[in-house]
Amino acid sequence: MSLGEFDLIAKYFTRTVTRAALGVGDDCALFSTSPGMQLAVSSDMLVEGRHFLPTVAPDRLGHKALAVNLSDLAACGAKPIAFTLALAMPRVDERFLEGFARGLLALADEHECELIGGDTTQGPLNLCITVFGEVPQGAALLRSGAKAGDDLYVSGTLGDARLALEAFRGTVALAGDAFERVRLAMERPQPRVALGLALRGIATSAIDVSDGLLGDLAHVLRRSGLGAEVRADALPRSDVLRAMPEALQRSCTLAGGDDYELVFTAPPAHAAQVAAAAQAAQVSVTRIGNVSAAAGLRLLDRDGRALPNTFGSFDHFKA
Amino acid sequence: MSLGEFDLIAKYFTRTVTRAALGVGDDCALFSTSPGMQLAVSSDMLVEGRHFLPTVAPDRLGHKALAVNLSDLAACGAKPIAFTLALAMPRVDERFLEGFARGLLALADEHECELIGGDTTQGPLNLCITVFGEVPQGAALLRSGAKAGDDLYVSGTLGDARLALEAFRGTVALAGDAFERVRLAMERPQPRVALGLALRGIATSAIDVSDGLLGDLAHVLRRSGLGAEVRADALPRSDVLRAMPEALQRSCTLAGGDDYELVFTAPPAHAAQVAAAAQAAQVSVTRIGNVSAAAGLRLLDRDGRALPNTFGSFDHFKA
Repeated sequence: MSLGEFDLIAKYFTRTVTRAALGVGDDCALFSTSPGMQLAVSSDMLVEGRHFLPTVAPDRLGHKALAVNLSDLAACGAKPIAFTLALAMPRVDERFLEGFARGLLALADEHECELIGGDTTQGPLNLCITVFGEVPQGAALLRSGAKAGDDLYVSGTLGDARLALEAFRGTVALAGDAFERVRLAMERPQPRVALGLALRGIATSAIDVSDGLLGDLAHVLRRSGLGAEVRADALPRSDVLRAMPEALQRSCTLAGGDDYELVFTAPPAHAAQVAAAAQAAQVSVTRIGNVSAAAGLRLLDRDGRALPNTFGSFDHFKA
Repeated sequence: MSLGEFDLIAKYFTRTVTRAALGVGDDCALFSTSPGMQLAVSSDMLVEGRHFLPTVAPDRLGHKALAVNLSDLAACGAKPIAFTLALAMPRVDERFLEGFARGLLALADEHECELIGGDTTQGPLNLCITVFGEVPQGAALLRSGAKAGDDLYVSGTLGDARLALEAFRGTVALAGDAFERVRLAMERPQPRVALGLALRGIATSAIDVSDGLLGDLAHVLRRSGLGAEVRADALPRSDVLRAMPEALQRSCTLAGGDDYELVFTAPPAHAAQVAAAAQAAQVSVTRIGNVSAAAGLRLLDRDGRALPNTFGSFDHFKA
């Protein structure tokens, strides 16, 4: 069966848009932000073998491609509006497209984020999504806003996605049930959009953990011109990861990557509001350390003793 | 020399933003549209061997990657504001990056279109740009606006990019000077942004010619529920193309692709305004036919006789 480019777009990706003035099918998509709102934009490109394995189910890939972009909006405290999808595929594969569109659009519907345009072409598999959100003027959570004395928090749990990757690589062995649970963390991450929105006006800075906690936190500290103490044993983790050797737990939580949880800072006086925001967003939040005026990132064990920081961050050109 | 992802971004793509509130280097870029303006968004993905040849100079590739996106804004009559760039490369190639960024940012500066964010990753060479423009509410040029009786126009000349491609493929032979001229059309297309802006309120519909005149015009006619007569011999072409056999001239102008000229419609009463818009935008505009209530696209020769329409459109999954 041979479908041309335009038929493809029509069959899988054309939907009636409600918020946008014009969706898929013209030279541009058109939409407006609400008065007083800034537009927040993020773009992420996913490449096979680097951001996902060839074994991933198409619907999970569709979910993840949008989820990693929504996670960037969450880290800014922006409300999702719309997205564009550019897709290169080696050949027209309808089974892939059907599943991919299903997973993608299910997550889009959940967040009321409309597909408004994009591009399809022949080429090595590559998914590029650009997502649009809106945030009241001046209210975005930035990397640069952390203050000395702020508490340091992380949402959800860390490290499961990396544990799943190591299981796929064969460096750890997991029972079937445990494997399926961490595989879900890797293949169907849940962007913390509701938490990001709830933290506006409460958190002083935020970032999403995509390359590993320490590496991403370092961006916040560099932008804010500050340092931090992180209590390695306070890092939240799943029961599956807790059953692993301590060294593996540490590397997965501190530098695993692909977590899509929010790391954020807030003054101690906002602790109750942070807890309320977490409850409203129905996601757990854990205090993992604090921001300090002294530059550098210090890792501490449960007794407050310094741990050597030998954990690298994930770099798409070094890893 | 080994530069990591973050160093790369900083070295080649971080610039001080003037219009955007926040540029490259946070989770999202932030910017606002002016009051009463709609945002116009377009996304195009370029793949080696399909949208450009491996022989293209990096600065020309940088130019073209943005030009094809600006051309979509032009076709909507939108004024460029900003863009994001997602880039997959097999390896860090600084010579490539330096040239690519130079060509890209020179065109961006020319159109006051800011680079505000994006992504870089390791993978088969792939360039995905999403461009943002603004247009007064309701003023965008759409594909659906053509009216029966409208004149049909095209900007600039058609067919040179395809002639260059055929020369690269070895199916035609061109003298060195002639080759360099058509190669420029293929590798450094000039998006008709000024013309698109000048045509707001004058043209009834517009599209940019990326897949070939007949194929792209068919989108306008389908969306508008109309037909058209096109005078094949009226199609504007360069002296280089005029020196070629007539059959080649016809296939290059009617279905060549990669032209990035604007095809648009306007009522005969607007003819003087169209001419004034073209003059203001410093680009030639040629009347090539007219829109009719009768469905279908009819090709006519210089004596008004029907020509068989055997010209296919470029399809990224069929060509």
